[in-house]
Amino acid sequence: MKKIILEPIGAIQKDSSEVIIEKEHEEALDGIEDYSHIIIIFWLDKIQKKRKKIKKIIPYGIEKAGRKGVFSTRMPFRPNPIGITTVRLIKRKDNILKIEKLDAFDGTPVLDIKPYNAHPKERIKKVRIPNWEKEKHKRKLHKTY
Amino acid sequence: MKKIILEPIGAIQKDSSEVIIEKEHEEALDGIEDYSHIIIIFWLDKIQKKRKKIKKIIPYGIEKAGRKGVFSTRMPFRPNPIGITTVRLIKRKDNILKIEKLDAFDGTPVLDIKPYNAHPKERIKKVRIPNWEKEKHKRKLHKTY
Repeated sequence: MKKIILEPIGAIQKDSSEVIIEKEHEEALDGIEDYSHIIIIFWLDKIQKKRKKIKKIIPYGIEKAGRKGVFSTRMPFRPNPIGITTVRLIKRKDNILKIEKLDAFDGTPVLDIKPYNAHPKERIKKVRIPNWEKEKHKRKLHKTY
Repeated sequence: MKKIILEPIGAIQKDSSEVIIEKEHEEALDGIEDYSHIIIIFWLDKIQKKRKKIKKIIPYGIEKAGRKGVFSTRMPFRPNPIGITTVRLIKRKDNILKIEKLDAFDGTPVLDIKPYNAHPKERIKKVRIPNWEKEKHKRKLHKTY
């Protein structure tokens, strides 16, 4: 299939919990302050090439989960290591988004920012997840890739 | 910033509401049946190059919203036209995911599939969105890019 080329729009600064957007895109953030939460789409650039070929994995070391296909996990090893996470937006100042927390390496390239705009009536009410995910929650493994 | 190269893992078949994953990635879907909902990350390949340069826009033609930065909307015009949507997974058969509905063109390249795995306790409780988003809901403009 045809290859796709992307250019990062910014990067994550882990220590300060900030997303630094390139100056050329600053204007494109206008209005983001109206949302309590934003979705950050980032590129897991630390994933080695050979790890992108992994098909199945024991997620988060939870043995009882068994081996799962990477698309049925949020593990970073996947053909296109794109991460998505929804975080609370604390403040926007010019091209800088101060966020609550983010589980990503420092300098991680950001591909897109979207508002978390689900109208209360649109939100998913009933969700089914496997039992091992509950185990993950107990162990506080809140990976959001 | 350094360019990023991605290769689609499949494509959307709109008429049948299916995501067709490439045969080489079939195994990576194992376990996806355990989730009621999945997140589809796709590439809006019909967006013209010049439209990727738009910084501000009146979202969905809702005049009273005013001009908003593209990162504060779900409009498809953005530097990296990545779309994300959460849909109900009806059935998986081999490399085919039958889904409830999806607002995307036929043949849209798919970049990644993730389980919607939010533990009930992890889900965002209080959300603030601007008023014009409520207008969008009234008009049933459920765009999820």
